[in-house]
Amino acid sequence: MTSPRITIEIPEHLSKPVGTPGPRLLEIERSKASFSSDELKTYLHGHEHLERIKRILPILQNEPAFDKSRLHYMSRTEKFAAGLAKEKRLAQLLIELEWDQADHNLAESLLDWPAAFGLHKSMFTKTLAEQSNEEQLKLFYEPAKRFEIIGCYAQTELGHGSNVQGLETTATYQPESQTFVLQSPGLTSMKWWIGGLGRSADHAVVMAQLHTPDGKNGSLVKRGPYPFVVPLRDLKTRELLPGRTIMDIGPKAGYAMTDNGAMLLDKVEIPHINFLARWAKVDPSTGRFEKPANAKLSYGTMTYIRANIVQEARMVLARSATIAIRYCSVRRQFADRDAPVLDGNKPAETQVINYQLVQARIFPPLVQAFACHYTGKEMFRLYAENQTAMAEGDFSRLADVHASSSGLKSLCTIMASGAIEECRRACGGHGYSLAGGLASFGADYLPQVTWEGDSYMLTQQLGRYLFKTFRTLLADRDAPMSSENRTRDYILAYISNPEAKASAKYVGDLADPSFFIDAFGHRAAYLTATALKKRDVERRTWNSLLIDIYRCSVAHSQFVLVYNFAQAILHDKELKAQPALHRIMTTCFELFACHTMDAEAAEFLSSGYLSPKQHELLRNRVHALLAELRPQAVPLVDSFGIPDFVLNSALGRFDGDVYPNLVKFAQGEPLNQTRWNVDINDPELQVGPEEGAVKSRL
Amino acid sequence: MTSPRITIEIPEHLSKPVGTPGPRLLEIERSKASFSSDELKTYLHGHEHLERIKRILPILQNEPAFDKSRLHYMSRTEKFAAGLAKEKRLAQLLIELEWDQADHNLAESLLDWPAAFGLHKSMFTKTLAEQSNEEQLKLFYEPAKRFEIIGCYAQTELGHGSNVQGLETTATYQPESQTFVLQSPGLTSMKWWIGGLGRSADHAVVMAQLHTPDGKNGSLVKRGPYPFVVPLRDLKTRELLPGRTIMDIGPKAGYAMTDNGAMLLDKVEIPHINFLARWAKVDPSTGRFEKPANAKLSYGTMTYIRANIVQEARMVLARSATIAIRYCSVRRQFADRDAPVLDGNKPAETQVINYQLVQARIFPPLVQAFACHYTGKEMFRLYAENQTAMAEGDFSRLADVHASSSGLKSLCTIMASGAIEECRRACGGHGYSLAGGLASFGADYLPQVTWEGDSYMLTQQLGRYLFKTFRTLLADRDAPMSSENRTRDYILAYISNPEAKASAKYVGDLADPSFFIDAFGHRAAYLTATALKKRDVERRTWNSLLIDIYRCSVAHSQFVLVYNFAQAILHDKELKAQPALHRIMTTCFELFACHTMDAEAAEFLSSGYLSPKQHELLRNRVHALLAELRPQAVPLVDSFGIPDFVLNSALGRFDGDVYPNLVKFAQGEPLNQTRWNVDINDPELQVGPEEGAVKSRL
Repeated sequence: MTSPRITIEIPEHLSKPVGTPGPRLLEIERSKASFSSDELKTYLHGHEHLERIKRILPILQNEPAFDKSRLHYMSRTEKFAAGLAKEKRLAQLLIELEWDQADHNLAESLLDWPAAFGLHKSMFTKTLAEQSNEEQLKLFYEPAKRFEIIGCYAQTELGHGSNVQGLETTATYQPESQTFVLQSPGLTSMKWWIGGLGRSADHAVVMAQLHTPDGKNGSLVKRGPYPFVVPLRDLKTRELLPGRTIMDIGPKAGYAMTDNGAMLLDKVEIPHINFLARWAKVDPSTGRFEKPANAKLSYGTMTYIRANIVQEARMVLARSATIAIRYCSVRRQFADRDAPVLDGNKPAETQVINYQLVQARIFPPLVQAFACHYTGKEMFRLYAENQTAMAEGDFSRLADVHASSSGLKSLCTIMASGAIEECRRACGGHGYSLAGGLASFGADYLPQVTWEGDSYMLTQQLGRYLFKTFRTLLADRDAPMSSENRTRDYILAYISNPEAKASAKYVGDLADPSFFIDAFGHRAAYLTATALKKRDVERRTWNSLLIDIYRCSVAHSQFVLVYNFAQAILHDKELKAQPALHRIMTTCFELFACHTMDAEAAEFLSSGYLSPKQHELLRNRVHALLAELRPQAVPLVDSFGIPDFVLNSALGRFDGDVYPNLVKFAQGEPLNQTRWNVDINDPELQVGPEEGAVKSRL
Repeated sequence: MTSPRITIEIPEHLSKPVGTPGPRLLEIERSKASFSSDELKTYLHGHEHLERIKRILPILQNEPAFDKSRLHYMSRTEKFAAGLAKEKRLAQLLIELEWDQADHNLAESLLDWPAAFGLHKSMFTKTLAEQSNEEQLKLFYEPAKRFEIIGCYAQTELGHGSNVQGLETTATYQPESQTFVLQSPGLTSMKWWIGGLGRSADHAVVMAQLHTPDGKNGSLVKRGPYPFVVPLRDLKTRELLPGRTIMDIGPKAGYAMTDNGAMLLDKVEIPHINFLARWAKVDPSTGRFEKPANAKLSYGTMTYIRANIVQEARMVLARSATIAIRYCSVRRQFADRDAPVLDGNKPAETQVINYQLVQARIFPPLVQAFACHYTGKEMFRLYAENQTAMAEGDFSRLADVHASSSGLKSLCTIMASGAIEECRRACGGHGYSLAGGLASFGADYLPQVTWEGDSYMLTQQLGRYLFKTFRTLLADRDAPMSSENRTRDYILAYISNPEAKASAKYVGDLADPSFFIDAFGHRAAYLTATALKKRDVERRTWNSLLIDIYRCSVAHSQFVLVYNFAQAILHDKELKAQPALHRIMTTCFELFACHTMDAEAAEFLSSGYLSPKQHELLRNRVHALLAELRPQAVPLVDSFGIPDFVLNSALGRFDGDVYPNLVKFAQGEPLNQTRWNVDINDPELQVGPEEGAVKSRL
């Protein structure tokens, strides 16, 4: 658009908000803190990480290619271009500044801007690193790390989202030419959703069903899905190579800057070296297939990815709570006769955060963020411990860690995506504007619920493990298991006393973290026992138990969150050494535990573990804790330390200067440069040929 | 963009999906129907409405201005232009074809395309019609109906979403000049979110605080918010008139084609006639203010708007269920050894709809749609009855109808927006593509949760009514109330027997619709009694009860849904005369009642009404009903009769031809006309100057 920009000026004398301004309101909130936000920030993130942010954030903030302020106004193609510019500049910085992996990860998370090279930097190079032999590392991995080739990871097909074994694309080995021929058998086998494939990638790791000619009399044998490196485009001209039909799949709910692509392969021949051969092998001259060794090791990687998803859910919850809590402290609606005096005046309207029903919606994400913090940390610890053990041939921890990580991936992604939307709604009308920062963030987060194992169907993995463990312990209470296995602990407790009852008589009894560990353990075991009875005694089909299994998975995962949070309250030395921090974290734990138990009360009541009277205690305690947390809400979200650069929200800004920034966002809208003809009998749509770019007639 | 379009062709021999094609799968589903979809469609919508669709739909489908196929690819400004073209053509048709209000409403709902004239056609003309005196009808209303002026309705302000009494904009009467002066006192009073204001409207109905000079010694008196007609732009040049600062507020989560706008008014003078004076009056020469008569009448309108929202929720639920159920019948993932043989072959993968956990997510919206159908109908009946009664001076029904409509607005919008997202997720990865039809639909539906009374805070209106009714009946069981008042019935039942227990012993007992009427009534009364005790006995503040009140509202509203659905099953003659329809509607009722009761089980258990054992019966019944409904799911959604033109979904198409249409959507993406330069050391972003429109450098 080359037309002159019509700037809409706000008359100076009308440019100030009426009433106590947002910055002053947040200042008052902060003055009520019972602890130091900075100390809590250091406790949560660690000194090293905060220093890293101090070093990297200014670099990003000062880089024109990383300016997001115009993104929401752009068309898809303009967004894609801006994303590509960002990817190129970031790649240059990675090389120029010699950032290590932690620096790089931090930069990506601060930029929070998925674009064309996303899959190149993750799955493409990761797969090359893990599945290549020495020669392939030189040939593919090293150029990829230097961005000399740009790749993508082509697994999903149009008709096959989750079922890798069901992939249709084939790769058939021909010993004569020492080549593999890749073939899409039909439309449903079209590679689909592949990030970076649509426009940017010149290479792909393609997952295809390997067929080798080493059956009886040289007949073809299907060997299952394996990874192949397939060149897609001419590196210079960017022309597609023959036999490849490739396109971007079109607009999505979010991820506008990523060119998720589709691809059909028709008789595409690639040399023998392009089959990634670190684990499985195909003999070049005979085509004889050699199976990979222990496949269990790959479960470790999955656990790592899922631990990352839990850690990410923490920041999603924290970010949602930050925006909602700050804005609800600035926004005022309706008079409250009981409202406290502000700056010597009785405010005409009360801060929205004072409403109990608002607190009930935006405080749970806040305390869930802390719960995910502790469990994310613990999962990384368990992952590392398990990797060490597996390297020594000890696979005893694997099943529990892998199963828990599946259930937690499911629970945390569903919880986090729900929290974004709940917080967005709690921001009222302005939550719907892209200036609010939650609507687009929510749209970009949604795929997490579906990918890396659909968060609903995935719960079967944890279900299988819970069934197996329960059966084992039912048969032998002393069956050998890792001493760190909490699943065993709660199942054994249940088996010894299935009719156990909650002991709480007074509200004060709810102050004991162990109360919740016992209660959540009993419930998880009770649900598993009930479902297992249907399976083993009533002989019901697996499919008819999927709802029950889903509930078992939720219950176990909530147990894990409660357990790890409780451990910190009870035993974390660093926390206990700082009484103000320990005090506020204890309140957060109590709200997390009570709120979760109340939200799931049916199962606690149905098992007979909790009495209706105890449930009433619990509900009242939730209400009391909301009020207790109210004055600490803003200081608590400050302690997450999410920079405005990341929040990208007029509502959640640290300074609380909400309304002038909503107006600034409106002023930037390109539509404001155009003038329209609303005469229904005149086919011309725009007034005056000099303005705006869209020229269309009715 | 003038560059030649690069069409990406699919090789002919790869263009067919592998396995049983979608159309065949839906054909098989339809062959299993236990009833006639067409007969159910006629029962639900009525012959007259179906005939109207037959008449109007083809007109819309054949109109180039109503072609939506390119909308998802457009920039905001292009979308706005397309929306304006649609509005102009629709306005022409309205006049040319002399459509009545029902025709017009149907056309809007079939187009499902909110754009620039949306508020002109609704709130602007409606307010003019209802609030104008005779002279004003001629001056404003009639030109508006002929689209000679285009208006908007300017109530909400930047700092005042819900609180109309708190509006800051003032309108001060000056008897000397016989004019009102409109003034925005500061930034928070900026009119905001106003649909059509940003670019299209040349007039606004502005809600402003009226000040009249008829106080002591001629001092100004504040009279509260009233509507004023304010001209905004020159009708020909579209230039803003002096004193108006107006702009579009920028991009939102949805509603890209509507120019929601912002406006500051600085010393804007309008003549006396521009104060809408049907009810309240200002004497031209003295400025003496005359109050409007009974304000209660306006509650009738609110009830009507909310009844419409419930009716709309029905179609939102139906549309979500239609897309998810059809696509989950076409999509297959993973082998199921127990899967039935299809066309003589054992399918390699099972239809996703066969998974219990998928059914548990997509069947509830289906039966909720029927629940909303009956309650929507009943609300319109009550509205009409109440309007007649009020015209005769009988206000006895008003409180119950208005309170229930508030609770139902809250419950149904939250339920419907949740259903869109649940159904979107159940579509797996493709649910995230805009080709799926649910992601953008969900984004456009979200404002319903916030506007017309925030669906969380609004529940206080029903809460107040429930408290009042309970108190009245507690004091006098024979207090006079309308005989149609079901709230009284369930409260009285509770007062006579607060310790009542559910009677069900066997699964068969759950077949009695009265069981659920009693149970939901008891729960609503129990929750109200509990909350009321906190208020009246413990003297707790209103704010500390907002969560309890919210729960009371949900419980009452679910009672209403269950009650009206049950009445149809028990007494609807037209339904009972058609056994096949009655049979399937009964199953839908049972699933609705059992599922809702199970989802809210904590409150039924906590009151002691339901025993843990009965809860177990209920849960098993839900699982059995899902299996029972499974073969009828596709025929049931067919009976909603939502045309493909409305669904606008590659996944939910009537013919089931999903995959070729996902590919077609990808082929239309404009990004596919561009070629990109990924060399990180070359600042040029695009390859070749001849392609694409975006020309930017790093």
